[in-house]
Order: sequence, then C-alpha cells, then structure tokens
Amino acid sequence: MFANKVPVAILGATGAVGARFIQLLHNHPTFRIVALAASDRSEGKRYADVAHWVLEGEMPRAVRDMTLLATDPDVVLRAAPDVRAVFSALPNEIAAIAEPAFAQAGVLVFSNASYHRMVPDVPLIIPEVNAEHLRLLRHQRQKRGWTGGIVCNTNCTVSGPAMTLRPLYDAFGVRRVFCVSMQAISGAGYPGVPSLDITDNVLPYIKNEEEKLEAEARKLLGRLDGSTIHEAGFGLSAHCNRVPVIDGHMVTMSVETERPVTPEDAVRVMREFRCEHVAGLPTAPDCPIVIREEPDRPQPRRDRLTGSPVGGMSVVVGRVRREPLFGDYGVKFVTLAHNTIRGAAGGSVLNAELAWRMGLAGD
Amino acid sequence: MFANKVPVAILGATGAVGARFIQLLHNHPTFRIVALAASDRSEGKRYADVAHWVLEGEMPRAVRDMTLLATDPDVVLRAAPDVRAVFSALPNEIAAIAEPAFAQAGVLVFSNASYHRMVPDVPLIIPEVNAEHLRLLRHQRQKRGWTGGIVCNTNCTVSGPAMTLRPLYDAFGVRRVFCVSMQAISGAGYPGVPSLDITDNVLPYIKNEEEKLEAEARKLLGRLDGSTIHEAGFGLSAHCNRVPVIDGHMVTMSVETERPVTPEDAVRVMREFRCEHVAGLPTAPDCPIVIREEPDRPQPRRDRLTGSPVGGMSVVVGRVRREPLFGDYGVKFVTLAHNTIRGAAGGSVLNAELAWRMGLAGD
Amino acid sequence: MFANKVPVAILGATGAVGARFIQLLHNHPTFRIVALAASDRSEGKRYADVAHWVLEGEMPRAVRDMTLLATDPDVVLRAAPDVRAVFSALPNEIAAIAEPAFAQAGVLVFSNASYHRMVPDVPLIIPEVNAEHLRLLRHQRQKRGWTGGIVCNTNCTVSGPAMTLRPLYDAFGVRRVFCVSMQAISGAGYPGVPSLDITDNVLPYIKNEEEKLEAEARKLLGRLDGSTIHEAGFGLSAHCNRVPVIDGHMVTMSVETERPVTPEDAVRVMREFRCEHVAGLPTAPDCPIVIREEPDRPQPRRDRLTGSPVGGMSVVVGRVRREPLFGDYGVKFVTLAHNTIRGAAGGSVLNAELAWRMGLAGD
Amino acid sequence: MFANKVPVAILGATGAVGARFIQLLHNHPTFRIVALAASDRSEGKRYADVAHWVLEGEMPRAVRDMTLLATDPDVVLRAAPDVRAVFSALPNEIAAIAEPAFAQAGVLVFSNASYHRMVPDVPLIIPEVNAEHLRLLRHQRQKRGWTGGIVCNTNCTVSGPAMTLRPLYDAFGVRRVFCVSMQAISGAGYPGVPSLDITDNVLPYIKNEEEKLEAEARKLLGRLDGSTIHEAGFGLSAHCNRVPVIDGHMVTMSVETERPVTPEDAVRVMREFRCEHVAGLPTAPDCPIVIREEPDRPQPRRDRLTGSPVGGMSVVVGRVRREPLFGDYGVKFVTLAHNTIRGAAGGSVLNAELAWRMGLAGD
Repeated sequence: MFANKVPVAILGATGAVGARFIQLLHNHPTFRIVALAASDRSEGKRYADVAHWVLEGEMPRAVRDMTLLATDPDVVLRAAPDVRAVFSALPNEIAAIAEPAFAQAGVLVFSNASYHRMVPDVPLIIPEVNAEHLRLLRHQRQKRGWTGGIVCNTNCTVSGPAMTLRPLYDAFGVRRVFCVSMQAISGAGYPGVPSLDITDNVLPYIKNEEEKLEAEARKLLGRLDGSTIHEAGFGLSAHCNRVPVIDGHMVTMSVETERPVTPEDAVRVMREFRCEHVAGLPTAPDCPIVIREEPDRPQPRRDRLTGSPVGGMSVVVGRVRREPLFGDYGVKFVTLAHNTIRGAAGGSVLNAELAWRMGLAGD
Repeated sequence: MFANKVPVAILGATGAVGARFIQLLHNHPTFRIVALAASDRSEGKRYADVAHWVLEGEMPRAVRDMTLLATDPDVVLRAAPDVRAVFSALPNEIAAIAEPAFAQAGVLVFSNASYHRMVPDVPLIIPEVNAEHLRLLRHQRQKRGWTGGIVCNTNCTVSGPAMTLRPLYDAFGVRRVFCVSMQAISGAGYPGVPSLDITDNVLPYIKNEEEKLEAEARKLLGRLDGSTIHEAGFGLSAHCNRVPVIDGHMVTMSVETERPVTPEDAVRVMREFRCEHVAGLPTAPDCPIVIREEPDRPQPRRDRLTGSPVGGMSVVVGRVRREPLFGDYGVKFVTLAHNTIRGAAGGSVLNAELAWRMGLAGD
Repeated sequence: MFANKVPVAILGATGAVGARFIQLLHNHPTFRIVALAASDRSEGKRYADVAHWVLEGEMPRAVRDMTLLATDPDVVLRAAPDVRAVFSALPNEIAAIAEPAFAQAGVLVFSNASYHRMVPDVPLIIPEVNAEHLRLLRHQRQKRGWTGGIVCNTNCTVSGPAMTLRPLYDAFGVRRVFCVSMQAISGAGYPGVPSLDITDNVLPYIKNEEEKLEAEARKLLGRLDGSTIHEAGFGLSAHCNRVPVIDGHMVTMSVETERPVTPEDAVRVMREFRCEHVAGLPTAPDCPIVIREEPDRPQPRRDRLTGSPVGGMSVVVGRVRREPLFGDYGVKFVTLAHNTIRGAAGGSVLNAELAWRMGLAGD
Repeated sequence: MFANKVPVAILGATGAVGARFIQLLHNHPTFRIVALAASDRSEGKRYADVAHWVLEGEMPRAVRDMTLLATDPDVVLRAAPDVRAVFSALPNEIAAIAEPAFAQAGVLVFSNASYHRMVPDVPLIIPEVNAEHLRLLRHQRQKRGWTGGIVCNTNCTVSGPAMTLRPLYDAFGVRRVFCVSMQAISGAGYPGVPSLDITDNVLPYIKNEEEKLEAEARKLLGRLDGSTIHEAGFGLSAHCNRVPVIDGHMVTMSVETERPVTPEDAVRVMREFRCEHVAGLPTAPDCPIVIREEPDRPQPRRDRLTGSPVGGMSVVVGRVRREPLFGDYGVKFVTLAHNTIRGAAGGSVLNAELAWRMGLAGD
C-alpha cells in the first residue's frame, strides 16, 4: 500500500509553511514525501540541521535526515524520478521561475505563492468554493504545452471571506462586502514580524494584502466559462491589520446582498453549506463552516484548530446579525480561519487531493 | 494663586480612570483636588492604601495621604464645602443615583459613566466636536431645578470616529460609516480582562459597545436647537473587538459622504480642523487630529501619547485613501485615540475647562 | 466494560483545573465521571451553562448536560451512590472542610488543593518521585477512622524540581538547590491574573509560592519510615515570578550535590530515570524526564505538551551544564512542566491510577 | 552657550541604541550632536529616511535631516573637525576596527559594543560602581600612543547586579552570587527577536550572555592598582532568559556575603548608596538604587522609567529578604534596570559626563 502512494516533493521546505506541508503530509493516505528542496544556501544539508521548526509538536522522524535538494526540477527528478507533484512554499520571486519549470517538467505544482494566482489560466482554488475551476488546468496545459501544471491556493486572509461568501452568494447574491482583518503573526512567516513591532501593538498595514484580498475573492467566486473565468461582480473593500496573535486570521464582514436576507437565513445557508467534490477527502473538514452561537466567539486561540479530521480546516463564524446600514439586504458577522492550515498548507493539500479525485493529475 | 484654583473632588478615585483624573488634575492650573471619594468599603481609608495605581509614573504625593470619603454629596460637601465640581469615574449603577444627587447639591458633575449620556437634556461633549451642546446645561438646570448639573464625556471608542467625522461632515456631509474597533484592555478597567482571555487572542465582542458607539456618534454630531438636540442623520455600524494592547483604541473607518470627496480633501479638512472654543485651554491639544503619512501608522504603542501639551489628547489618523465601494463619495482610514486620556479622564477635564471658559459653571 | 469503570466525581468542576480533570477523565480506561459538584451558586445548573471552558478543544459532550451538585458527600452519594473517588479542584478554604467529609464518607479524595499537603499523615505524591508514600494512606485511615482518605498532588511549580531532583538525589545526594521560577498565568486560575498586570510585564511575587515550593520538595523527596515521613535534608530556596505565558512553568535550577557530578552524569541519570510503579498506567508518560539537547530549549510554548500517551505529563529539561559556583559538586539546568496537566489535574489522575494499581483504593 | 557645548558624533545611529543616544543627547547641556554615522548602505542618506525609530516619542527635529556619514574617522572629522567624542552603538565586528581608529584619530569613544570590554587597558565603567577605573584611560593612551581613547559601558544585564553588589561588597564582602535574568526583547536590538519566538513563550538562552555577565561583574567590582585592574574575588553564576517584555531587565539575585548581613542591613546600604563622582551630572540619577517596599515590585512595565532627572537611570530593587541557604551570610532580592537607558545609551552618556568632569577628556 505504501508503495502505491503518490510520491511528492516539498519546495521551500525549511520555512514555516514548508513545515506545515510536512506536518500534514507525513502520514497522508494518498501522498508520501520523497524529496525536500530549499534555497541554495541549504542545499546538501540535513533537513533537521537547517529547518527552523516553529510548529507545535515534533518534527516527524521521517524527514529529519532527508538531504535538502536544490529547487530545480532536474535535480529533484534525478533524485526522485517518480515525483508527480510538488507542494510549493517558495517565496514569490523564486516561485516565478521555479514553478513553471516544474510544470514544464511534467510535475503538478500546488502552490502557496501568490505569483501566479491572478494569471488567467491558473486555477486559484478553495475546493469548497470553486472546485470546478480546476478544469482550467487542461486549458493551461494545452496553451503552454505543459504536461504538469500550476494550481494555486489563496492568500491566507481570503479563506474566511471566500468560504462564507459562497453560500451567501448562491442564495442571496452579493453586492458589496466590507472586510477588516486582524491577522496573526505567523502569516508573515519566520522570522517575520519583529517582536518590538507587535508587542502591545497593532500594525494597521500589511503590504499588498488588501489588494490581494479584493482581487482573489472575485476570481474565486467567479464563473468558469470554457477557458475563461468571469470574475464575480461584487465589490470588496478591506482594511488589513496585524495583531499579537500566533495563528488564526479573523475578518469582520459586513455584506450587502442582492436579495433580502435575515441573520437566520445566513446562518442556515452557511451551516448547511457542503461541497460534494471534497466529501470524504482526507483533509476535507466534515463541516466547511462551523457556526458558533456564543456572543464572543470565534476567538483565534480557542477556535483556530476547529475542524475534523484535520484541525484548522474549518472556517469558524460567529456573531451573525443584521447589518443595519444595509437594511433587509445585509448581514454582518466575524470569521476565523487558521492561516497556515486552511489558509496555506492545508489548502494546497486539499487542492491536490481534489486534483487526484477529479482525474486531473495527469495520465 | 493656588487659593484661586477651583476646588474639585474625584468620585470613584481608586480605579483606573480615577487614577487618570488624579494624574491630569494634580498640577492643573484651574482646578485643585480637595477631596477623593470611593466605594463604601474604602471609605475612611488612606488613598495610597487602597488605590491600585496602574499608570506609568508614580502616584502624586499630594493624594497619597488623603482620606477617602463616601460617595455622597453631604459627606463630600461637609468635608470640603467649597467643592464646585466633581469628576466622576463611578460605575454605572452608582452613577445613576450619585451623579444627580451631586447636581442637585449644586455641584457640576463631569462624568465618565455612560448612564446619563443619552438622556436628552444631558450634554454629551467632545469640545472640538460639539462645544455648543454645553448650553443644554442651562435647560437641564431649569427643568430639574438643579444648581449644579451633569455633563457627560463619551464612550472611549467613539472619540476617534466622532472627531474625524466632524470636519468630514461639515465639508462633505456623511451618509454611512462602517467602523471596526480594535480596543485596548485598559478600556475594561481593572481587574478587567483576564489575561487567560486575551493572551494570543482577540475577543470579537464587547458588551453594549457597538450600540453605544452607534448612538453616541449621532448625538455628538447632532444640532442643538433650543433645548433639543437633533441627532445627525447618518448611519453608523460597528464591529467591536478587544485586542492585546494596553492603551489606545484603533478604529478603521469607511465613510460614505453626501458630496464628492478625495483622500487629499479628507486629509486637508482633518488636518486644518481646529476648534476656537478650546484654543488655549490647558488640556486642549494644539492639533485635535494629527495625520501620519507613513503607510503603517498610527500604531497604538507608538502613537497613543500624541498630543501637546497633554500627551494622549490628539486623535491620530493614517492610511487615508479612497473607499472603492463608495466611488467618488467615500474615503477610508484608521484612527487611534488614547482611551483613558482622550476617551475618558482627559475628555472630562477638557469638558470642565470648557464649562469654566463658557461661563456655564454657575455663578 | 464501561460498567466496570470506577465511578468518580469532580469537585470544583467549573474552574480551570476542574475542566482539565474532565478533559483527562472523559475517555479514561479506568474511571468514568458520574457526577460534577461546584459551589453553591452553581448548584442545580447545567454544567455547560456555568463552566467557563478555557481549554483548547471542545467541552466533552458527555458533561455538557450534567447537573451540578452541591459540594457535600451526602448530596453526591445520594445522586451517585457508587462513587469511589473524587477529584478535588476546590479552593483551599472549601477543601479544608469538604475533603475530610468525603474521606469520612468512604470516598478517596485526590486533591489539587494545598490545604492538606503538609499534614503529616496525608501522602503528597508525584508517583515517579515517591509512589511508596502512598502507603501512608493506611495509617491515615486508621488514625482518623476513615474508610476513604485524602491524597494530595503537589504545587504546580514543584513538579519540575522534584522530578529532576529524584534521580540526582539518588545518584549523587543533594545539598542545596537554588530555584527561580517563571510561571504561566494559568497557574493562577480563572479569572486569575488581570491582563493589565501581566502584559509587557513580569510579576516578581506569587503569594505563598516560595514557601510551598521549599516545603513540598523536602516532603516529596523524604523517606517513609512506618507512619512517618522524614523530610529530605537538602535546602531549597526559590524566587517565584509570573511571566506572560499561558501554560508551562519553567524553573532554573542550580544544584549542589553531596558527591561529584558532571553534566553528562546528570543527563544520564535523568534520561534513564524510570518508575516501575507507574509503568503502563494510562496517564504515565513513557519518559518522565525528556532531555533536550538544543541550546535554547525547553521553551514553554513549544515544549509544554511533551509526553506520551498524555501530552504534558513529561518534565522537559535542557541546558544541563556545570554550576561553576559548586565546582565538581554541582550542575545547573532549566526544567519545564505543564502546570495544569503534570502540575495539577494530570498529577492527581496519575495518583488515582497508582492507588488503584497498588490496591490502596479500599476494598 | 550653545557654541560651548562639546561637539559629538554617534556611530551606528540608525539602530535602537543609536536612537536612544539621540534621544538622550539632543538637548544635553554638555554635548551637542554634530554628526551621525551608520553602515555603508545608509551612507549619504537622510537620517529620517533610513532610521527605524522604535522609541516612544518622536524623532527630534534636529536630526531628521542630517546626512549619514561613513563610519570612518577621516570622513567624520572632515565633516565635523571639532568632534571630541563619539558614542558608539556599533555591532561588535565593526566596533573591533572602527573604535580604535577613532581613538587613534584623537577622539574619545564611549562604546556600547562588547568587543573591547574585557581588554585589560580599556576601562569598563558604571560610574557609581567604579568611576576611578576611568583613570586607566591615561595608561591606555600612553601604551597605545593614542590621543583619544576607548571607554566601554557594560552589558545591559549586568547593570542591576553590579550596582547592587557595590554597596554590599563594600559593607559585607561578597563570596558568591546566583543570578537569573528575565530580559526584555529590546536587548536584542531591531529587528531582534522574532515575534513567533517570544509570544506566549520564554527563551532560556541568550548567546554569550551568561559569560559576559559573569566576567564583567568581576572587572567592574575590581580594584585599580596602577595600570592594572585586579578582578573582584567573588563567583557569579547566571541563567539568562528572554521574556515577552519590551524594556527592562529583571535579575533575581541570591548573594552570599563574607560577613553577616540582614535584609535590613542590605536595604540600608543600598538605599544610602551614593557616588560623589557623579553627583550633579546631568544624567546621574538622584538615587542610584531605589528600594520598593511593596511585595510585588519592581515590575518592568511599571518601574523601568524610575530615575530623576533622566527616567530609567535608577536601578530598582525589591523583595529584599534572607537567603535561607546562606544563613546569616546571605540575602536575596530582585533588581530591575532599563536595558537601553541605564544598561546602554544612558550608561555611556553618563560615562562621558564623568570623563569631562574628571578632566580625562583630553586637553
């Protein structure tokens, strides 16, 4: 059985998101890690000697002694010729070059980098939101002459908004969305945010974050028509803030709908929201959106690991109430999503599981 | 000269806001503290023995040995017959009874409690925003047969929004405002927020806070017509959150205006905003609104003490930019106000200075 | 099989340690929770309605709807006549009365309260350190005419020092120990430490903590001789501090031994330290002391859940090195123990498992 | 008068300690800043454009527009030929080269770098502790043929221990000292400690810190005999920890004396401790050691700015009590010193004031 698992590699393995990939994949029923790659200065070194493991729980034994490879498809495929997919936690400027190179070499790239997210023929996927966009992969291959391909996950902050907008959009239409994020420090990677900047403080600015949130949400909720994604027509405006929290991005949302909506309606469609495409996948949560009834939830520390079987894959929603400024056409609420699980590594792993189920992983 | 200062007392002197009153008044050019009152269980004790002094800097020597009096006008006026004003840091349920009693006894009450804020004949004042509402005091006295009176300051969170809305409202009109607060722990007093609730966490709920913010903003920006305040006609909707910050409430704002506005316009009217009524008052800041140009300011820890001559009395504004969802009729930005200075004790002291200047302090 | 589990009750069930008891016992192979008791004002209410659940993870469904009983053996035994043991998370002043009452009523009390810890006929137990002290229970019953009894766990801070001193004491003798603790906020319970006291701060004082640490360590390492415990002869001096950490008490230790010791010796005896009495018990960690080799470990956030099968039951030790001030007779190092698991609820559960294995649970 | 001030430059001006130098010197009665130098990549740029100003309060206007010079005595003296002293906040590897170069060029270097601290002919000075060591400067000049010289301040952690040991040593002799530090994040500079490492955490290791503390304390308390410092004969052992505090290093101390001592004795000699050499200097605190009587003080956030006329220059001591392990020959207590004021920039400024008063600043 072990022999039947799909061999995969992790790019950018030594960073914080790389560590999450390892944590989520090291006992995975479908994939098995056969290679780790990292930046030039780590090449040839033992993983345990250079990785800065910042997660709760120990580094899995299986990867401790793995030798880091260069981030180069020739090198990786020479060391592990049967690699079918790579999970990319690369920084943007390296992803720009390396991800297409792997795709051209016949490997499916599940990327956490933002570089290719808004490229028209690259599927940007949250499976529960837009699984069918994955079909864009065929068009991407054809157009570019690749046998592999690139599939992007989203910015870590967009998970909560996009996941909750999906059922609201389908049931009531969405016209405008006002978002304000309170984002965890792990979203900036390691070393990331200096403690002198965030202790007893809030930073009201995260570079490019508001733009990403606004653009990605419209692509995610868009409609695939042949080889084109028509972006969803609503407007979204964001204020993005960094707060002294380790993991878990909160986003307050005030949503204006096309058709009348009550808080009870909104709770109902979010609670009943399911996605047939992901049902039963190893990393898919039983319940994509978990509604909390208490007045003071969700809270990052207490709710970020919500989700089963993989903690941190559900989006948690609370305080669903009327948005008085939109009358009968609005609700407001708060969302929480684990930024390095649902919003990063876990999202990409679920994308890969989906690709395999949909038979899009190549022949 | 000392003999000419107005004798005042502080009610609720042992708490966090009481300490701020002492800090701001102990070398004040107009007022001098002659009595401190507190709850029954502290009555008769030495201030230094029961006060939990949580401020930076030492407790002023002048108050250390003062004996705490009961919160009762008979007791306070027997001990200090010449008291003309009291500053109230009382909890709401005690303010409900005690503040009218002092007013009836001929004392002017400058209150930080919320109990009387929305009472129609009680002026709710941020001097730069609505100094003229203070004239309501004459009506209050007449109607109630008081020789003293009650003047309220605002909820600590409303300072930033109200102060910035004043020049925008006057210049462009305001239709709708979306606010999201990130509030400091000191806003909950002492002992206040348990550390187990706020470490590595955000609390997305503060009881009654959103309602206060929404109601008080409209009263503050309202128009006094004889003895009636006509509330301002805009809508305001808030999400209120508690974050792990000691002092300084941040509020993100997305403002829809009646007339076209650009970010440059908004910056200009906020920067030029001045109030003749407070010019030169001891606690009035040279600049009610300070605009920061850096992309990542204001920040609570670094900017909360902005203001001169009294640090913490200016509202700091940053990231003024277009609000895309309101087209030419909107701007968005972030505000910061020190919640226990501008938003509490400092606000009431400035109200008192204004009352004396306007000749409303009685004869 | 379920029917064969020992029925137990939890006293003080609504607080932070009570919650840990529920978390550790709700799927326990030996015990099953049949009753929950709490203070008078909670009596008769549903557990989920009054408990402030501050732990990671959800409240177990099995206890959500349980009705809280009075902390009275008559009431508890009327509601659940087959209760054989209670786990006490009572405050000291209530434990003083209630724990003996339960013991007299034939119930074995596993207490987390400090009240009876230093009473001569009450066993104060960390199983790996002094399992044989549990035999004092027979003497306690005889002397007091009880059919039940009281077994105490230790102060949460003493776990790390006592556990590491056991193998050092046995191998090299111990003369003097200098301890400095950096203790987590959860050690003060809920609401416990106000956030205004501990944010950006350290509190260099915890009431009675240094005395407890010094006294309990000597009793724990003492020798049982018939019905008397002869305290260990070493001296221990402590500085106790509160730091802004959620869970996990760190203690630096400088240990003077009776016989020469090297850091390598000390590491070896701590690493090899095992306790036959607890081997295989459900809550006993595979490895009582886990040694970290990295220069900067243990760290509370990263290492507090060390231990298998129950995370948080191992003591983690690092930086073992020479203590230059004691020449060849000293080592220094740092210890970390989870204060609400190993140092509180988990410790008591392990005590109960030990009592059942040793046949001391009554007939 | 302004013309009479001594012209000085700051090396390493753009970092955190550089900023403190600017803050302390920009209105100084003896010195005036005439040049700022920084690393090569900042050379030629405007100070305000490259400095990361992390202090409370604004950057002084006088330095905002200054152009950064290269860290080279030729460059600095060409730009400002009358510079008599430089304050060095250089990183160690640059200080190694640059500080002697400035000394050779006739400039007196007041250094915050550790590189030269333990060099035998370099005075390592805390004025209240060992002002007379400054006379070593004459020997240094003679030996090296310099007209300038190098004077070091101490490691930021040693301030509290050294300052309190001085009066104890003089009155009772000191044999052994056990220190445990809880150090603020600002001690690591900017960006310094990643927030992911220190949030909800303690780091039990700071590279080389324990060695510095142990060595510097003995040199500081040593006796100058001609051109030689005989180190003090006591032993000191330290555990150094990083805690989530912005400013203020706490150190617990257990001190064994040569002669009997009581806590009252210790309090008395520390409270009465004064230094004639610094009396009246602009940065010297009225009271070098401030004793707090409350059981839970000092605390970093509340006490770190103790000191007058310059806040943060006093060492604050509390919890003075018997050290039971040393019987009549020991006391234990806790010290707090502001690490970037007393322990860094403020210390060097006071050293410079002392050099000028003692006539050691050259001709």
